[in-house]
Amino acid sequence: MSDSVRAVKIRDCVVGGPELVVMAGPCAVESREQILGAAGVVAASGARFLRGGAFKVRTAPTAFQGLGWDGWALLREAADAHGLLTVSEILDEGQIETARRYVDFAQIGSRNMQNVPLLKALGRSRMPVLLKRGFGCTIDEWVHAAEYVLREGNESVVLCERGIRTFETATRFTLDVAAVPIAKARLGLPVVVDPSHAAGKRDWVECLTLSAVAAGADGLLIETHPDPAKALSDGPQAVVLSEFPALMEKTRRVAEAMGRTIPVGARVVAA
Amino acid sequence: MSDSVRAVKIRDCVVGGPELVVMAGPCAVESREQILGAAGVVAASGARFLRGGAFKVRTAPTAFQGLGWDGWALLREAADAHGLLTVSEILDEGQIETARRYVDFAQIGSRNMQNVPLLKALGRSRMPVLLKRGFGCTIDEWVHAAEYVLREGNESVVLCERGIRTFETATRFTLDVAAVPIAKARLGLPVVVDPSHAAGKRDWVECLTLSAVAAGADGLLIETHPDPAKALSDGPQAVVLSEFPALMEKTRRVAEAMGRTIPVGARVVAA
Amino acid sequence: MSDSVRAVKIRDCVVGGPELVVMAGPCAVESREQILGAAGVVAASGARFLRGGAFKVRTAPTAFQGLGWDGWALLREAADAHGLLTVSEILDEGQIETARRYVDFAQIGSRNMQNVPLLKALGRSRMPVLLKRGFGCTIDEWVHAAEYVLREGNESVVLCERGIRTFETATRFTLDVAAVPIAKARLGLPVVVDPSHAAGKRDWVECLTLSAVAAGADGLLIETHPDPAKALSDGPQAVVLSEFPALMEKTRRVAEAMGRTIPVGARVVAA
Amino acid sequence: MSDSVRAVKIRDCVVGGPELVVMAGPCAVESREQILGAAGVVAASGARFLRGGAFKVRTAPTAFQGLGWDGWALLREAADAHGLLTVSEILDEGQIETARRYVDFAQIGSRNMQNVPLLKALGRSRMPVLLKRGFGCTIDEWVHAAEYVLREGNESVVLCERGIRTFETATRFTLDVAAVPIAKARLGLPVVVDPSHAAGKRDWVECLTLSAVAAGADGLLIETHPDPAKALSDGPQAVVLSEFPALMEKTRRVAEAMGRTIPVGARVVAA
Repeated sequence: MSDSVRAVKIRDCVVGGPELVVMAGPCAVESREQILGAAGVVAASGARFLRGGAFKVRTAPTAFQGLGWDGWALLREAADAHGLLTVSEILDEGQIETARRYVDFAQIGSRNMQNVPLLKALGRSRMPVLLKRGFGCTIDEWVHAAEYVLREGNESVVLCERGIRTFETATRFTLDVAAVPIAKARLGLPVVVDPSHAAGKRDWVECLTLSAVAAGADGLLIETHPDPAKALSDGPQAVVLSEFPALMEKTRRVAEAMGRTIPVGARVVAA
Repeated sequence: MSDSVRAVKIRDCVVGGPELVVMAGPCAVESREQILGAAGVVAASGARFLRGGAFKVRTAPTAFQGLGWDGWALLREAADAHGLLTVSEILDEGQIETARRYVDFAQIGSRNMQNVPLLKALGRSRMPVLLKRGFGCTIDEWVHAAEYVLREGNESVVLCERGIRTFETATRFTLDVAAVPIAKARLGLPVVVDPSHAAGKRDWVECLTLSAVAAGADGLLIETHPDPAKALSDGPQAVVLSEFPALMEKTRRVAEAMGRTIPVGARVVAA
Repeated sequence: MSDSVRAVKIRDCVVGGPELVVMAGPCAVESREQILGAAGVVAASGARFLRGGAFKVRTAPTAFQGLGWDGWALLREAADAHGLLTVSEILDEGQIETARRYVDFAQIGSRNMQNVPLLKALGRSRMPVLLKRGFGCTIDEWVHAAEYVLREGNESVVLCERGIRTFETATRFTLDVAAVPIAKARLGLPVVVDPSHAAGKRDWVECLTLSAVAAGADGLLIETHPDPAKALSDGPQAVVLSEFPALMEKTRRVAEAMGRTIPVGARVVAA
Repeated sequence: MSDSVRAVKIRDCVVGGPELVVMAGPCAVESREQILGAAGVVAASGARFLRGGAFKVRTAPTAFQGLGWDGWALLREAADAHGLLTVSEILDEGQIETARRYVDFAQIGSRNMQNVPLLKALGRSRMPVLLKRGFGCTIDEWVHAAEYVLREGNESVVLCERGIRTFETATRFTLDVAAVPIAKARLGLPVVVDPSHAAGKRDWVECLTLSAVAAGADGLLIETHPDPAKALSDGPQAVVLSEFPALMEKTRRVAEAMGRTIPVGARVVAA
């Protein structure tokens, strides 16, 4: 299906082409050791982007809110050490200028999908934008949110399906796999999938990852942590880092059945 | 139930006391004539606040986005002419300083319920805040959003239930009437209800208005327009202005059965 | 709104006329003492029907499934002793003939709303039918289910809104109050509301009861139990029997504001 | 994941083993020509079961309700002519004895998932049962429904995920792919997926089919019709029969990546 998609180029990486672009890392950057360890493993498994939040939107004000600017510096350092690009959430127009030095791919979080001032500011910034679907929003509303960015002249928009809110509580959200081809057909933008937030529990991440690839996703955004039990946010849904390579092996097989490739992790530069 | 609620005072109006506080007006300020006409009728019917958006968050970027600062000036003028207070949505921290001159009650819209920088900024501003529930958000998340405002030292927070997203399409959203007592019990803040966005169609606004009052709502936020067919936004759900007084008469009867009062509209100052 | 409704007469009781018809009692008939006690109190408070399940559809096969035929006999006895009519769920065509002796108003449960053989059988039976809305069904589907009964020549159909499944977990279901006028407008049938199953917790039953009356409901179906902590099913949502009269007093006030009456409980025959 | 599943044997076919069991055919049996044509193509593509409804539960009473017993006879004839087994919905205990002659695999439809008398009757019948998930029901309720069948001593139960009701309207239902491993983990029963009802539109059937296989489904239940524009029910979601073989080719590639097989269609016997 990717032939009808207008690929988005982020530095040397093309989202929406034959490569299935893997973005992985912890929910939040917590320490130098944590993010460097994650970077090494995900790079060796074929990931192209290191994910990690520095400014976290948490449901409760008492929850860990991220390391802020220090978090971005650590993310950049870890990514550079392993030949990875960076993807991280931007909350506010005021963060954009600094973000340019640290973040290659600017994520708009699910809770901000309809934050129009932010959509427009990132549109004007010309940074590549990863627009997550609001968990209470229709595909139609998601497409309109993307149009706010596009209309500012920024064509580097990638959509990210991450599950919607339903009555089912066995998972944190219900992954809407059909949204992948439907959203592609609407705007011709690449669509990636975040299986972690939908699953809410690591046991179901593999199922959602493989399903997403079979649904035609152009990429994956996966949470993995060296020691999820100690994670400061979203630990229960993080794949244990030591199990990430095996997950990527299974993913590669399904990707190949779909005519997609995941690079072998030769890009590992140093420890 | 209002005895356990910590009332919020906005100039001379108390939300969460024995008065059922009515806030009404058009979705968006469109013209001087439109907003003045609305102000006169809603004041005469017992409303205390004139509502009207100047900066609209619209799903599609091509939809009418509001008159901006001019809209707020017209809202203020119309409210002052009829002894009303004003309630209007603020989208962005940058709007707060100017808003102080025009807006008595700062609304955080449903799409911004989890916009943490905005919650914190309005917390610091000490403006009275009307926090709408995100249409995809649980009561628990709504309460946590309110805590972001409260923790900045701003205790003037009123919650607004406005319907949640469900599978039922006969209405635009499904009004969650039980959220009124549940949210009150959680934080002790007053809760008002917006029946208009839940209904999506004016035929069902009366039902939802009366239900909200019977559920124990401390106030109402109702859209009314002199000529809904020509409204630039949300026309289908606006009560026809000429029918607003009759709606208020029915509302007053249910309010009285609940031990609440709606002032008679003696506050009309001039035409 | 009841002027446009085609009233349904069940023995001496008219549903859809000026009277707000109250149906109350325990979820399940458990013992002679329990059902007689409930009958006395609900009759004294103005209820016209005694509710009580004898054949329960429980989610889990290990849960209490009801007393069966004995349950119906006890329900009839208790109702007769207090001048009440009976409403109880019928699961299966094979129960209809016996039901005629015990049940005045045949309830089709939420889980059976689209059980077409049952709909047709009760249509042919000419018993008055109380058709609950499926918790996962749209108003449109509910109306079509009613048409299955009507098309067999049975015009004595009353609809019952009882909450739909949504993402909100603070209540067991979300009561769709707008469904009351919408369903009435579609078929002209009376609509009653069950606040108990929507609430799931007795604390919220009052709110939903009063909201339903304000929404224009033609009747109420409320669970009440002498000792909910010992109830064999749905205890947490049952109003404590000793608090039922106070709930009815509040309900009466809202009903009167809506132009409806609830009879005073002069119909009490014996203790 | 299938190693932890207790396979169910239906004549010579094992559901829950290494084979991905394909069940396909029209929504409803409409004519001898239609069902024979479908049988030939689906058998040649590797399907093991011919599906086709004879007693249809339709939302509206005026919609086509199926050919009844004649439909089952035609289904049997077409399946036998092409070496296929049959799967068809049973609505009522009274149909079971006749069904034994025509139906190898008794489907309980989504609307009947909590029809307890039917669950128990099929439990007693010992027919292999395909239990569809209610579109408004949780995984937990679905598992309990299966327990009603199992407790009658019938262990031949296969679950079928077919989409749940959510706010998204771009598809008819939202396929809950995570339900596949979750339901397996709960009871150890095989789980198959119906992508057709979830999609509601044939454009999205391929996406959902491949996702289901990647999620670990043990089989597929797919609607296909020689001329969907003329179908008497569910035409918009039926794969055009002439395109079914290509869909199976893609499915086979993903199945193989998951370590599953789909037989090549050597079983074609005669035209």
